[in-house]
Amino acid sequence: MPVPAEALTALGNVLGGRLSRSGPDLDQHGRSETWFPKALPDAVAYPETVDEVAAIARICAAHGCPLTAWGAGTSLEGHALAIKGGICVDFTRMNRVLKINPEDMDAVVQPGVTREALNVELRATGLFFPVDPGANATLGGMASTRASGTTAVRYGTMRDNVLALQVVLADGRVIRTGTRARKSSAGYDLTGLFVGAEGTLGLITELTVRLQGQPEAISAAVCAFDAIGPAVDTVIQTIQLGIPMARIEFVDEATAAAVNAYAGARFPVKPHLMVEFHGSASGVAEQAEAFGEIVADNGGAGFEWSARPEDRTALWTMRHNAYYACLASRPGATALVTDLCVPISKLAQAVEETRADIARSHIPGPILGHVGDGNFHAILLVDPDNPVELAEAKRLAHRMTERALRLGGTISGEHGIGMGKLGHMAAEHGPAWDVMGEIKRALDPLGLMNPGKMIRQE
Amino acid sequence: MPVPAEALTALGNVLGGRLSRSGPDLDQHGRSETWFPKALPDAVAYPETVDEVAAIARICAAHGCPLTAWGAGTSLEGHALAIKGGICVDFTRMNRVLKINPEDMDAVVQPGVTREALNVELRATGLFFPVDPGANATLGGMASTRASGTTAVRYGTMRDNVLALQVVLADGRVIRTGTRARKSSAGYDLTGLFVGAEGTLGLITELTVRLQGQPEAISAAVCAFDAIGPAVDTVIQTIQLGIPMARIEFVDEATAAAVNAYAGARFPVKPHLMVEFHGSASGVAEQAEAFGEIVADNGGAGFEWSARPEDRTALWTMRHNAYYACLASRPGATALVTDLCVPISKLAQAVEETRADIARSHIPGPILGHVGDGNFHAILLVDPDNPVELAEAKRLAHRMTERALRLGGTISGEHGIGMGKLGHMAAEHGPAWDVMGEIKRALDPLGLMNPGKMIRQE
Repeated sequence: MPVPAEALTALGNVLGGRLSRSGPDLDQHGRSETWFPKALPDAVAYPETVDEVAAIARICAAHGCPLTAWGAGTSLEGHALAIKGGICVDFTRMNRVLKINPEDMDAVVQPGVTREALNVELRATGLFFPVDPGANATLGGMASTRASGTTAVRYGTMRDNVLALQVVLADGRVIRTGTRARKSSAGYDLTGLFVGAEGTLGLITELTVRLQGQPEAISAAVCAFDAIGPAVDTVIQTIQLGIPMARIEFVDEATAAAVNAYAGARFPVKPHLMVEFHGSASGVAEQAEAFGEIVADNGGAGFEWSARPEDRTALWTMRHNAYYACLASRPGATALVTDLCVPISKLAQAVEETRADIARSHIPGPILGHVGDGNFHAILLVDPDNPVELAEAKRLAHRMTERALRLGGTISGEHGIGMGKLGHMAAEHGPAWDVMGEIKRALDPLGLMNPGKMIRQE
Repeated sequence: MPVPAEALTALGNVLGGRLSRSGPDLDQHGRSETWFPKALPDAVAYPETVDEVAAIARICAAHGCPLTAWGAGTSLEGHALAIKGGICVDFTRMNRVLKINPEDMDAVVQPGVTREALNVELRATGLFFPVDPGANATLGGMASTRASGTTAVRYGTMRDNVLALQVVLADGRVIRTGTRARKSSAGYDLTGLFVGAEGTLGLITELTVRLQGQPEAISAAVCAFDAIGPAVDTVIQTIQLGIPMARIEFVDEATAAAVNAYAGARFPVKPHLMVEFHGSASGVAEQAEAFGEIVADNGGAGFEWSARPEDRTALWTMRHNAYYACLASRPGATALVTDLCVPISKLAQAVEETRADIARSHIPGPILGHVGDGNFHAILLVDPDNPVELAEAKRLAHRMTERALRLGGTISGEHGIGMGKLGHMAAEHGPAWDVMGEIKRALDPLGLMNPGKMIRQE
């Protein structure tokens, strides 16, 4: 449904030149990072204040016009695509860090602040914001998709790191959820409800996030294994011994090869673990030693520690670029990225079954993941113009979601539902998915907030 | 409204002798731990299966009959009182540990399992369930009130330690929320919504909880300070240095005196910190040393470490009994227990203002709390038959909630809302309280789940 002219006039009165209908603007906001077809909004709004966001919501409610939020556009499941048209609310002009409270180790930020920008602002404080999904996403987007990444094994996901929110509801009401207190049992956890709601219940206009102290010492290492089983066993044993890993990442042979080609690295073409410890100098050394013993017990090789910042930066830059390295390993390809998360005892089985499945297809699918959480991704590389390949990738992805559920896990560890996982929600949640729909209808009775996402479509 | 005879007949058909209308049973389920007046249910149901709970919900829905859950009856805000009558659903017969998954460090339990019973079952595994509110509450009750306690500074609250739930909804539908995966971004966080909902959205019939590895080494200590400020500064500095405390508790002079009288202890009548570290032997020793230096810098005295289990047990038994010691310090008194939680930078101010307020009243009010979380309690000791004292205690408690909100905190850190805090919900949440009501009406349109609690009363 096109946006009525009166709605555009009313929005223009609020936003002036910050309501855009230019072709390039619509096009930029109609694309996603992955394989989803283009879906253009009718207009892009660039609000600068919560009052403007509330006015946008009221106008959209009055005219039955859909509203979809946009952060950095880095989500992988097409969350920000305005598939029913309407207004794309781009939060990039609400990008200020409003308050840093060093003593309380929290910060109040606008939703358009990126995680890297926040960490730059925090440099002088000795604090940092730990959640690191790889992409330089906005905090509003990260909250909305319940993002996590390499550090979740130590510092948790966005669920654990958002203390409070300001949210504009579908009818334009502005609410605050949570406080700066570290815990609360005062009422329903609305903060937790909006985190991960993918903009389907309201628009996040302010976040209070937890910060962490920069560790006194950091040490990182990478090591190779002959097979996936021993690598995963190393992780399980490390967790069970209570050794506090700050990151523990897995990459398979194909990913190692892709990284070698992309970044001139010289990893053996084998499964690898990349690990990092945070703590005191002696604590980190002790953890490194204990971990080294577990690695040796499991036949790991090439194990070498480094506490030098430049080595660590090189390691994690490489890990962060692994997605792009995989993409580059098949020129012209686009990625269908899967995102299983299973109980860790089932991780080796889940990875092995997935690899066998991919090997039987003719699509390349390097595997990497946040193994401390039981979470991994297959990067299925397909020719976007080849419907047969896309269908095959979807079939593999479908089998992976079935596998995740069969093994007691979830269809999405950290990427969210968006468009890509909607078809699997019933399988994971059963009648609980209806409850999500009931909550959605209670808070957004007109169905205007990011329509077509998250809940069962009528 | 009395329960219709047809409803009792139908419930009797389901439960047989496990539907009780005996006077002592109603009386036992009509009382709370604290100052709330008796409120008797019309009958007490003792289900043994989720199907029986679902049948109870369906019968109650058909007859417009209220349903209130009962765990161990240890909550402090009158949560489990059936103030509108109806059926009290006592979960004590659903008290089995269904599955322990040592490799994944989780357990599946029925809601009537107490935390101590779970930890007894876990002994042989090297794992433990860390959330410790003091009372031997049931896990269903702890989840419903989003309980925490002394270990939350390290291991989090029930919000952080419940992975998945089975819930019976108001209409008898049975849903499952969450999985055994450590994280998920698949849909609204329904687990987080039911945790802390105090039985107003559904009845929890099964929980999957996270477990922790028994630390290799534990060390504990207690030390005295001349004033509250330096004690709190010690905590802030310890957190900022990233020293991972497993517990850090504060008790004031009055509490120290009460504990001396109750348990024959010999604490100086001064503010104290009680602290515990979990980790490797050398890690714990290093943490103890670093903490000792901070204590010394802040003028703390009597600082002595012990890694002997019997000393630690004595220390924490004393801390757990502090509430009863305070109660015993005024024979015949009942307690109105407050539960502020503020950003830690405001903790000293919050405690000092509260002490000054209590000193100006004529009610004893020892203060103790989980200072690593910014959470503390004043135990206001009143003669239950003296309405003037009760009114004065309520006035003090009201000022404390105002203080918590003024300082950026919450009216309840861990005890929940129940009956005692309902009048403060509007002040904390503003229009977000209405959103809670909208969710409540969506999931419980007849308003039968623990009615009179949590949401704005019409």
